[in-house]
Amino acid sequence: MLSDIQIAQNCQLEHIDNIALKLGLDRDDLEHYGKYKAKLPLSLVDNNKLKDSNLILVTAITPTPAGEGKTTTSIGLADGLSKLNKKTTVVLREPSLGPVFGIKGGAAGGGYAQVVPMEDINLHFTGDFSAIEKANNLLAALIDNNIQSKTRSLGIDPRTVLWKRCMDMNDRALRKIVTALGGKSGGIPMETGFNITAASEIMAILCISKDIEDLKEKLGNIYIGDTFDNTPVFARDLNAEGAMAALLKDAIKPNLVQTLEGTPAIIHGGPFANIAQGTNSIIATKMAMSLSDYVVTEAGFGADLGAEKFFNIKCRYAGISPKAVVIVATIRALKYHGGKPLKDLKEEDLEAVVKGKENLRKHVETIASFGIPSVVCINRFDSDTDAEISILKKACADCNVPFVVSAGFADGSKGTTDLAEEVIKATGLCKSDFIPTYNLEDSPKEKIEKVCKTVYGAQYVILSNKAHRQLHRFEELGFGRLPICIAKTQKSLSDDEELLGRPKNFDINIREFEIAAGAGFLVPIAGNILRMPGLPATPSAENIDINEDSIISGLS
Amino acid sequence: MLSDIQIAQNCQLEHIDNIALKLGLDRDDLEHYGKYKAKLPLSLVDNNKLKDSNLILVTAITPTPAGEGKTTTSIGLADGLSKLNKKTTVVLREPSLGPVFGIKGGAAGGGYAQVVPMEDINLHFTGDFSAIEKANNLLAALIDNNIQSKTRSLGIDPRTVLWKRCMDMNDRALRKIVTALGGKSGGIPMETGFNITAASEIMAILCISKDIEDLKEKLGNIYIGDTFDNTPVFARDLNAEGAMAALLKDAIKPNLVQTLEGTPAIIHGGPFANIAQGTNSIIATKMAMSLSDYVVTEAGFGADLGAEKFFNIKCRYAGISPKAVVIVATIRALKYHGGKPLKDLKEEDLEAVVKGKENLRKHVETIASFGIPSVVCINRFDSDTDAEISILKKACADCNVPFVVSAGFADGSKGTTDLAEEVIKATGLCKSDFIPTYNLEDSPKEKIEKVCKTVYGAQYVILSNKAHRQLHRFEELGFGRLPICIAKTQKSLSDDEELLGRPKNFDINIREFEIAAGAGFLVPIAGNILRMPGLPATPSAENIDINEDSIISGLS
Repeated sequence: MLSDIQIAQNCQLEHIDNIALKLGLDRDDLEHYGKYKAKLPLSLVDNNKLKDSNLILVTAITPTPAGEGKTTTSIGLADGLSKLNKKTTVVLREPSLGPVFGIKGGAAGGGYAQVVPMEDINLHFTGDFSAIEKANNLLAALIDNNIQSKTRSLGIDPRTVLWKRCMDMNDRALRKIVTALGGKSGGIPMETGFNITAASEIMAILCISKDIEDLKEKLGNIYIGDTFDNTPVFARDLNAEGAMAALLKDAIKPNLVQTLEGTPAIIHGGPFANIAQGTNSIIATKMAMSLSDYVVTEAGFGADLGAEKFFNIKCRYAGISPKAVVIVATIRALKYHGGKPLKDLKEEDLEAVVKGKENLRKHVETIASFGIPSVVCINRFDSDTDAEISILKKACADCNVPFVVSAGFADGSKGTTDLAEEVIKATGLCKSDFIPTYNLEDSPKEKIEKVCKTVYGAQYVILSNKAHRQLHRFEELGFGRLPICIAKTQKSLSDDEELLGRPKNFDINIREFEIAAGAGFLVPIAGNILRMPGLPATPSAENIDINEDSIISGLS
Repeated sequence: MLSDIQIAQNCQLEHIDNIALKLGLDRDDLEHYGKYKAKLPLSLVDNNKLKDSNLILVTAITPTPAGEGKTTTSIGLADGLSKLNKKTTVVLREPSLGPVFGIKGGAAGGGYAQVVPMEDINLHFTGDFSAIEKANNLLAALIDNNIQSKTRSLGIDPRTVLWKRCMDMNDRALRKIVTALGGKSGGIPMETGFNITAASEIMAILCISKDIEDLKEKLGNIYIGDTFDNTPVFARDLNAEGAMAALLKDAIKPNLVQTLEGTPAIIHGGPFANIAQGTNSIIATKMAMSLSDYVVTEAGFGADLGAEKFFNIKCRYAGISPKAVVIVATIRALKYHGGKPLKDLKEEDLEAVVKGKENLRKHVETIASFGIPSVVCINRFDSDTDAEISILKKACADCNVPFVVSAGFADGSKGTTDLAEEVIKATGLCKSDFIPTYNLEDSPKEKIEKVCKTVYGAQYVILSNKAHRQLHRFEELGFGRLPICIAKTQKSLSDDEELLGRPKNFDINIREFEIAAGAGFLVPIAGNILRMPGLPATPSAENIDINEDSIISGLS
């Protein structure tokens, strides 16, 4: 069996001009980054075409350490649709270097369902993450510089500064730091830290902006902290948004690449789904919808996190609606949710499948609550047995949801034609736009309760005293009408990562709030969410190498 | 008078394919980054062609806050040579975002002698600096992760770790920090800090490497610190060099752009000249020499820093030698060296010119010590008077050095034809390779003394006790045969920034040493050198903006 990178390196890539041609684009429309990558101009978004395009969201059950293969399935599905002669684009997030060097590896699909050039996509790609870091860290430098300034001080109270620096790296040592030591010339010491770039508000803003003007306005709206007399300070008070937007002038443009089978792939932005909205940029999705009849996209983690935010934040802000949702599951993961230990997941265990399928069922119900047709897709592994698959097939038939086994990883589009056909059927059944879980007019507390009950299946929502106090302040500042972006573990439907399967009779505890005033959402925090991961004992980085011909190995 | 960015934006750029054509390159040789930038493959370096190319180094007198215009003169000279139908390339360093957002502005030339697209060159360009940051910071994360590891610890003593993180930003708050707070899961707390990217050893390594293999070896040689039992630890002990080199796979390739007049410009790497070697990459210089008959390049700050390191480090490692050196001065700066206050430099002051010209004379002598013909070039300002210029003209005639007034800023190549003609004459006079200031076999102390006496004009060199101790250790580790890269203020020939003009009877105090074992040089530190600058009270960033058509303003 070849590794992902070997399969990718064996692929004969088409020149990006030919991929663009499939979308009706001329080479002059492109900003080339070598022969196989290009940036696309914002002018390609055509709001009049959005209604006619079939947007398909790929989501998943509650994820397990093994991963369910959402990206692989998305790519495989897009290749399957292309094979059926549908004009298709797959739209994905950009990988973060944190997981690339850590434990999980890259995020360019796998096996025979990959986007290429995978090395470039997994390493800097076209520099978008770096640009986001620079914009983020310029604001941090301007804040500290203003606090240090004698002549132009805004009177910012350093103890209230919420803005952190960011870096696209798993580096636990940067999670909590004290800066500006070394005496008077070194600045005013502050307790602060770095977030990983995918968890930064700039990433969220880039992915939610319509154009440069909108981006600049949102950057200016970033809430930094308060002055000593308790007046809120925003990035615009530091005249920061112009330079920050200038740094993002290229990063705001979506990136065109291709799948192993030559299907156009637009990859743009990469906010995590536990702390931010978890899907690629609105611009990229709209651009793909402007250029193709079928658009496959994914949202991070399980449907409780990625899909919920995809609907209630992204689609709401973008004015778009998917026509079908694919819910990806693996037999292995369902056994895990049914209580089987990680190391034994290759063994047949019908009982575990029966128990574990309840997790899948909850996510099916969640998608139904949005009023959009869904298809359950089993991402097939060699160890799956017919008996195990039968159980799921029957369960899906019982709840009237189409069920497909797909094998994009092993077989590319040959393994996903069935899935593509089911998805086309599902889009035909979609008769209206999605139903949001809450209205913007609802109070923050109501919004949280609706999501926790409808999507997570929780009983009650409990706010800590701190959360109450913060909410009061944020409502006072006029942020009560924003959508909410709940930060919660991805490992459980609840806020307790130990509760697998379909937990019942649990409460959600909101410890505190953050405000992403620039991105435009309120972040209720349920549990302890790391915004800066660490490396494992043996980081993947140790296996990555490059030879004298610049061929990279060890990237997964 | 138009601003630099207005002039640049009014310029009708040629497609980069046409610029490449001037160097005999086909569009398939290029890796395009949009229409006006491209990366060049390492295979274009042809070591057999280096002898036939005329390499011209542009250096300067001791710089003043106003700046002398080395980059502008280099670009103007290249355009002048092109105008005389010489096949010419200008090779420059990439600008750092620190000065761009700080006080000095960008580094893409000025007036009618600029490289374009200036916005792109001054902001991320092709991502090289970001790639360097990532490689640097991956190593930092791997070090801290190893210290945190229970199972795979190398026993690194955290108190000995020399490796710092880096960021391309003027951010004083990151200069001295304490990391890894927050208890057991946060790592082992350490005193550390960030350098600006241009001052990082990875930048130095990238600019001194011959190819990917050489780069990887040098990355592996980075000296990190010691174990608790005093064994040195290198990056290779962490298996870091493969992933670091993979991150640099594109950054190692030089970038092709153009001057306002369409002369090919290769811009690659950007180490500062006070703490590192201060010139663009060896690969870029050799590539330009492989592709053109005249190659104009610059080295940072005055000849005491940039030119000295250009000869003794870069040319020695690269096996190349310039055929002429241009020493740039301005009348204003010479008056400043003659004691005139900064605010009065526009006033005629013959006495100040007479006194200040001694600084120029020292740098002329320095270049003569390398055995390479030089040309003195006055970068003209409107306020310069004929009487002031006459003084210099006579002084140069007295010491038999050609003297030219150039006006690339105001007039482009029309203002630099005289300079180009003088430079061509000078290259014709060059009969042999440069004479190094010291031999690699000399002891570190001897090397330092030779540079301090011959180049700075110092009397004695004094090593602190700490420096003695460190030197002993570094010699023990086998680093005694490396070239030296003295870190010293750029504001004076001495190590005291107050001593303007041509100071005499001064000593150089070496406080301590650093070792750049990867880049391959020993760094004696003379005085207090900031490796992480701060922003000024009113940062340039505040004036930078971008409009809805993505047109950037306020960048200088």
